[in-house]
Amino acid sequence: MGITGIKRLLLGRPLANAQASEEKIPKWKALAVLSSDALSSTAYATEEILIPLAAFGALALTWSVPVAFAIVSLMVIVTLSYRQTIQAYPNGGGAYVVANENLGPLAGLTAGAALLFGYLLTVAVSVAAGVGAVTSAFPEIAEHRVLLGGAFIAILTWLNLRGVRESATFFAYPTYVFIFSLLALIGFGAWRIASGDVPHAAPILEPVSEAVPLFLILRAFSSGCAALTGIEAISNGVPAFKHPSAQNARTTLVWMTLILGVMFLGITAVSHAYGITPQAAETSISQLARSVFGTGPWYYLIQVATALILILAANTSYNGLPWLAAVLARDRYLPRQLAVQGDRLVFSNSILWLSGASFILLALFGGDAHSLIPLYAVGVFLGFTLSQAGMVVHHRRERQPGWRTGLALNLLGAVTTGVVFLVVGVTKFQDGAWIVALVVPLIVALFRKIHLHYLCVGEELTLSHVDAPPHLAPMRHTAVVPVSGVHRGVIDALRYALSITDDVRAVYVEIDAAAADRMQKEWMRWGHDIPLVILKSPYRSVIGPLIEYLDDLEQTATREAITVIIPEFVTRVWWHNFLHNQTAFMIRAALLFRRGKVITSVRYHLRAG
Amino acid sequence: MGITGIKRLLLGRPLANAQASEEKIPKWKALAVLSSDALSSTAYATEEILIPLAAFGALALTWSVPVAFAIVSLMVIVTLSYRQTIQAYPNGGGAYVVANENLGPLAGLTAGAALLFGYLLTVAVSVAAGVGAVTSAFPEIAEHRVLLGGAFIAILTWLNLRGVRESATFFAYPTYVFIFSLLALIGFGAWRIASGDVPHAAPILEPVSEAVPLFLILRAFSSGCAALTGIEAISNGVPAFKHPSAQNARTTLVWMTLILGVMFLGITAVSHAYGITPQAAETSISQLARSVFGTGPWYYLIQVATALILILAANTSYNGLPWLAAVLARDRYLPRQLAVQGDRLVFSNSILWLSGASFILLALFGGDAHSLIPLYAVGVFLGFTLSQAGMVVHHRRERQPGWRTGLALNLLGAVTTGVVFLVVGVTKFQDGAWIVALVVPLIVALFRKIHLHYLCVGEELTLSHVDAPPHLAPMRHTAVVPVSGVHRGVIDALRYALSITDDVRAVYVEIDAAAADRMQKEWMRWGHDIPLVILKSPYRSVIGPLIEYLDDLEQTATREAITVIIPEFVTRVWWHNFLHNQTAFMIRAALLFRRGKVITSVRYHLRAG
Repeated sequence: MGITGIKRLLLGRPLANAQASEEKIPKWKALAVLSSDALSSTAYATEEILIPLAAFGALALTWSVPVAFAIVSLMVIVTLSYRQTIQAYPNGGGAYVVANENLGPLAGLTAGAALLFGYLLTVAVSVAAGVGAVTSAFPEIAEHRVLLGGAFIAILTWLNLRGVRESATFFAYPTYVFIFSLLALIGFGAWRIASGDVPHAAPILEPVSEAVPLFLILRAFSSGCAALTGIEAISNGVPAFKHPSAQNARTTLVWMTLILGVMFLGITAVSHAYGITPQAAETSISQLARSVFGTGPWYYLIQVATALILILAANTSYNGLPWLAAVLARDRYLPRQLAVQGDRLVFSNSILWLSGASFILLALFGGDAHSLIPLYAVGVFLGFTLSQAGMVVHHRRERQPGWRTGLALNLLGAVTTGVVFLVVGVTKFQDGAWIVALVVPLIVALFRKIHLHYLCVGEELTLSHVDAPPHLAPMRHTAVVPVSGVHRGVIDALRYALSITDDVRAVYVEIDAAAADRMQKEWMRWGHDIPLVILKSPYRSVIGPLIEYLDDLEQTATREAITVIIPEFVTRVWWHNFLHNQTAFMIRAALLFRRGKVITSVRYHLRAG
Repeated sequence: MGITGIKRLLLGRPLANAQASEEKIPKWKALAVLSSDALSSTAYATEEILIPLAAFGALALTWSVPVAFAIVSLMVIVTLSYRQTIQAYPNGGGAYVVANENLGPLAGLTAGAALLFGYLLTVAVSVAAGVGAVTSAFPEIAEHRVLLGGAFIAILTWLNLRGVRESATFFAYPTYVFIFSLLALIGFGAWRIASGDVPHAAPILEPVSEAVPLFLILRAFSSGCAALTGIEAISNGVPAFKHPSAQNARTTLVWMTLILGVMFLGITAVSHAYGITPQAAETSISQLARSVFGTGPWYYLIQVATALILILAANTSYNGLPWLAAVLARDRYLPRQLAVQGDRLVFSNSILWLSGASFILLALFGGDAHSLIPLYAVGVFLGFTLSQAGMVVHHRRERQPGWRTGLALNLLGAVTTGVVFLVVGVTKFQDGAWIVALVVPLIVALFRKIHLHYLCVGEELTLSHVDAPPHLAPMRHTAVVPVSGVHRGVIDALRYALSITDDVRAVYVEIDAAAADRMQKEWMRWGHDIPLVILKSPYRSVIGPLIEYLDDLEQTATREAITVIIPEFVTRVWWHNFLHNQTAFMIRAALLFRRGKVITSVRYHLRAG
């Protein structure tokens, strides 16, 4: 089995992408597939509220339910706002597209940078939280947290290189299992409280403590806003819905928010009643599940479902990032190549970059979801704000029927998410938001640098200001063939050289005087009339003397072009390539930045195994 | 400052290797430089004897001094044996050379594999022991042992990429500082015992306990044999000595063994008298130095000197490995390229491989010298045995004056080291010697596979059985130029194509129908009479349709060769290369294993920054 065989075995047959994009999915599946990112955040959002409050003291925990209510109100506002986006951008309105079209390139690039960084964080946070679900159930492997996260990322990488699609049906089940098991947890937990089965249950709506400072409550709110991450996925994915797609997407969005709101509020309220406080070694959900169900099959079901939906959430980045990169590349903000999605190699590169970068992020933060979340939330709200603000401008410009209502909803959305963005940015600045303040401008600067380069190159290459067609006069050549000996491998290269010019020179680098003498004698017999140049190499280097010779030749040659014809071997067994062509590789590398040489490889296919 | 500038700054000016190899070094320096590997083993050899004995109980420790005496006798035998090798191989008699010439290729390759693996282990063990010296003095950094080892390896890598030579004078001082400070430790320690200053000093030559099982004593002996590692370095380095080099090398070898023996016996005896027992957190030398001198400047001098000589010992591999690789490559057991030592790139690759592999080894064993030593010792004794056995055959064959004495000495050496090899292999099998039993045959198999491949290729390529010179008739060509648009970047490629054949075809892959229409119109104006082929791409791939077209062309073409002329850009700023030529790279990769296509790059040098 050759390389191709192994690759096929590991990665599967090439996909007909054109076909895949035509496939439309029904609402029940779209809900599962597009909301895994959003719903999975209930796995950590409640705990995020509890952590800053618990640091102040048990009294402060009375604020958790009101804070969750505030966050759910925010969800409603964001949902109403995104319903407008779905209608206005039925082809998918990501923050980059909306901000770029309506607010100009700087806002668009900022949104694009926030999204790009956000995709990394989605992988890092979701995987870290998934690992948290596993290590809560099996604390003995907690010390290998980063390794376990790496294993999850490796599995995602492999699945995506193989070409598993987000729309695959088996991706839908874990979401429903997660929803079902968490609703069961909330329901059974509430029933046990109602039946008086929980001795010291706190009342769910108890009066809040007034001694808690406002800044702390804002911090708790900011932390809990992690619950909103991923809520925009449906508006990005409108084209995937069945006809009428915009209508179906809007309905699905409302359903998703409803489920998300109920789960998030429910978990927060029941956790409060059970008196759950955040622990380093065990997630709050795990504690709650143990308290409600005991450490039995139900408990393990919840942990498994939580880990699975978090891995699914991480997987959404693998679908989102290449698409975003293609849009940015089309607009010349990323290497042009990324826009050509049909070439597997390009797509594979995006996947490997995403996996590598998110693993580094995960490792830098010690595999701890809680330390990564501030970075995540602040970027997400930056995207929300730019997207909603873009919609406000859109309504004013387009003035389509009902634009006033739309404008009012998006204005509310833009202002609210803008305020939340500032609140999160300020209260979480020290906890990692500063990293976003550093990374996003850097990415924007990189986008602009790439764009400028492409503009300059376009200017340099264009023929549109030139009136007459360029003169395509043939060139006159000198061909130089580096030879390592007299053998079959060089014959084709020499024949090729003779066929393109009458000025051919074979060049041999002398490392060992005796070998050079033998070479000279054999050349007399086999070399026809091609002159053999023997170069001395005092420092036993092959490359140095050859490059010097070529430079001299360029000074003295009367011909216009020098073609270096390198005989190369193609081996039958892939690793045998390491046994050949190293010199060819080095010649190529050495000539890379030198002008005016044309480099030609004439390959000899070895039969030897 | 360009790439070259940065490289110069970091790596220094290229070295005139031819000059360097002419430089001869005096005995006092040769002793320092070539014996750092051997002498540094006193830093851990005593402790290695103590560990198995201490595990049995305090009684067993009475065996440490007799075991050390046995090991010193072994040193004398090996030294006498290597004095013969120096005389017989004044150009440097490494185990590979001696075994290969006298015992045949299989023995030679086994010795070569053992040496190769040994170079890795020299780095790993020496660095691990050096880290041990540092963490004994500063236990608070003990948990970062692997990281610290990585830092030492990084420094060695950088120094060697820069081209520091083993013969540099400043490498000689640490060896003398080490010898001086350890002799001071032994002397002052003995004086304190003699003056009755040490309350519970054990008598140095106390009667041994008869309750200790033989196997345990053999284990202690095997462990202590680590003291002999590196003893062969002088016989490998004979050509570096001043005239008369063999005579000087023999004298230096005797001196080295004398110093090594005194230091090793001295440390072991004084350690025994002071009642040192092995500790996980602190080396025995460190304990002894603290007991003798107290934790003051003398203590820190000893720790620093020990760490330094161990790093020097690791550095010897960076000089030895490329030389061994070159010899093996010359004999076609490793990629041919490794024999060309003058090209910096080759040498740099060896260094990077050595650093990477030894760091992996170090990390796998948790940075612990004690776990690595069994692997090291068994490989070293395999080399000794093969080398001495080779010398026995050498004497019988050559029968030069005094050959009988030589034969007797080498026979004694071969038998003794052979027996020790077996003893170490058996007593340390579970402790890691099995890894050597696995790795050495694998390396030998790889050598043979590479050799076989080169033989087959040589057979395939040779023209020596052919009577008539091959006919170098020019070929008839078709040239295919993939174009991405009508711009200056493709003009040179088209001119080049026209200059080598009259059958030129420009090929454009259509991803977007509108762009293809524009392309067609522009081509009418600029494309002269070169036909433009437009290829449809249903799956939005650039590479797929192009390769298909080339394959079709090959089927139908009447011309002998197809040259694919790829227009490439050379950018002024290095990272801009990532923004171009990706398609060129993919075309090249896709064509790699296809027969009969010649690939030519015609480069356009961008002015844009």
